Amino acid sequence: MSAKILSGRPIAEAIKNEVASEVEQLKSDFGVTPGLAVVRVGEDPASAVYVGNKVRTSEQLGLLSEHHHFTDSISHAELLKVVQGLNQRADIDGILVQLPLPSQIVEQEIIESVDPAKDVDGFHPINVGRLTLGIPGLLPCTPAGVVEMLKRSGIAIAGKRAVIVGRSNIVGKPLSLLLLREDATVTICHSRTQDLPSVTRKADILVAAIGRPGYITAEHIGEGAIVIDVGINSVSDPEIVTKCFEGEELEKRISAVETRGSTLIGDVNPRDAAKIAGYVTPVPGGIGLLTVAMLMKNTLQAAKARRGIVRQEAQTI
Amino acid sequence: MSAKILSGRPIAEAIKNEVASEVEQLKSDFGVTPGLAVVRVGEDPASAVYVGNKVRTSEQLGLLSEHHHFTDSISHAELLKVVQGLNQRADIDGILVQLPLPSQIVEQEIIESVDPAKDVDGFHPINVGRLTLGIPGLLPCTPAGVVEMLKRSGIAIAGKRAVIVGRSNIVGKPLSLLLLREDATVTICHSRTQDLPSVTRKADILVAAIGRPGYITAEHIGEGAIVIDVGINSVSDPEIVTKCFEGEELEKRISAVETRGSTLIGDVNPRDAAKIAGYVTPVPGGIGLLTVAMLMKNTLQAAKARRGIVRQEAQTI
Repeated sequence: MSAKILSGRPIAEAIKNEVASEVEQLKSDFGVTPGLAVVRVGEDPASAVYVGNKVRTSEQLGLLSEHHHFTDSISHAELLKVVQGLNQRADIDGILVQLPLPSQIVEQEIIESVDPAKDVDGFHPINVGRLTLGIPGLLPCTPAGVVEMLKRSGIAIAGKRAVIVGRSNIVGKPLSLLLLREDATVTICHSRTQDLPSVTRKADILVAAIGRPGYITAEHIGEGAIVIDVGINSVSDPEIVTKCFEGEELEKRISAVETRGSTLIGDVNPRDAAKIAGYVTPVPGGIGLLTVAMLMKNTLQAAKARRGIVRQEAQTI
Repeated sequence: MSAKILSGRPIAEAIKNEVASEVEQLKSDFGVTPGLAVVRVGEDPASAVYVGNKVRTSEQLGLLSEHHHFTDSISHAELLKVVQGLNQRADIDGILVQLPLPSQIVEQEIIESVDPAKDVDGFHPINVGRLTLGIPGLLPCTPAGVVEMLKRSGIAIAGKRAVIVGRSNIVGKPLSLLLLREDATVTICHSRTQDLPSVTRKADILVAAIGRPGYITAEHIGEGAIVIDVGINSVSDPEIVTKCFEGEELEKRISAVETRGSTLIGDVNPRDAAKIAGYVTPVPGGIGLLTVAMLMKNTLQAAKARRGIVRQEAQTI
């Protein structure tokens, strides 16, 4: 048996198309263009790639898109002032401060300085609280993307046993609350979990979000499980690559390491998952693509809520 | 084998004694008396009992204690004004609005109107968000009481499999996050969980918070499990009572139903738990007592934080 690949590409495209058409409608019906401001500090290469993706995508979808870039010498007070300025601007609906921030910045204070109504990352404690309580609010993009992936792939969540490996504030914890809201029976595992394979093998839906390349192997995966790989790890060690792939894909990956210095591997060993799981998301090309798409959806949602355009579809169609 | 009873009484007393001695110290060292205002609407008899307990206990511990009682004809706007008035008072550190509220009141709006710094119930979304994120804040009393019960009984939580039955906003969800913070592997079950006994039997720590008398029976409990019963149900049906008790206790309970019309039973069948579990909390006399004790602790904590008295022990001893 060979697991079915749950590609993120068609689902991300569908979401982006929906956003683009709603943005167009907002412009024509209300003269409103949703605006996203992305704030980046310093020269972290991964951050540059992520921010580039977000800015480019928002432009493609017809959003007003701004990229505010500062050198890593910016002070905490200066960055705070930048965010406060964006909070006050009527034309900006979403503010995203790309993490991590340099050490002189108190990250949590910056996160909490973003107007919760413009917090398209869903990181502000009040939005996290709303998520926990089941009150409408802006949801963090990656966990929301996982749920969207499952739903749009026709995978029922209600009543399923979902096991999440990893308890981070940006993936594991919020995702556990979202899957609970969808009526899954949810278990969160982490570094202190005893006999991890015995827990994960019971999962109907297994989510890996730990940041360790290929950590989830054959012993962790139950026959036919739906495996969602949230990890995106840059790997340059050929030994890890050899454990994760075989055949043609292995050759491609080894050649990538040789020519570009590294290749992207998720938290799940894809070779093992392909043999045991029922479904598996690829890396790259899986959940990562959903994260950006959900950010666009959040910006649209924030724009409609802020500007009082509720149930716009019902009004105009 | 017979399960050890984890009585709430000595633990609640210990917590209250600690609070009382700290309150005395705050008075003598800083001239500060922590103040708790309890707001009650209408004539719900259970609410009257709960509020009575809270007011009496806070008086016993030396807190400034206020009981604001309104008839159930109070309007939403009027109740909002009451809370806003308490928010502004410098001598009030904790505000507790007893739930449920009558139907003309938008409960969530009242909860969100309480100053988060005075939110000793831990119900404000920003405090819920902080709890989820692991940032210091005021914790909801019942889940915090469960953790306190385990810790003060010398029960290690780290690495244990904790299974919570019930996903309410006041117990199940916040408790799952607290036990996760204590390094348990946490599973939340609910009405949509399939084959509940197969999940709960795996629990080292089993928490019942569903509001159904005696629902958790022999088939749900693993040999030697630590069983925490959060339910408090008023039962008048002798058939349920007969299923839950035997011998002398059964006679006592049946006589209570006959003379007072009802008896309190938790979500766990105590007869079954006594035979299979390693530890079990009683109802009454278990977690319920901890809830009030933790409210007192929260009021003290809010007073110290609001008045800038941090690490008071380190300064004065």
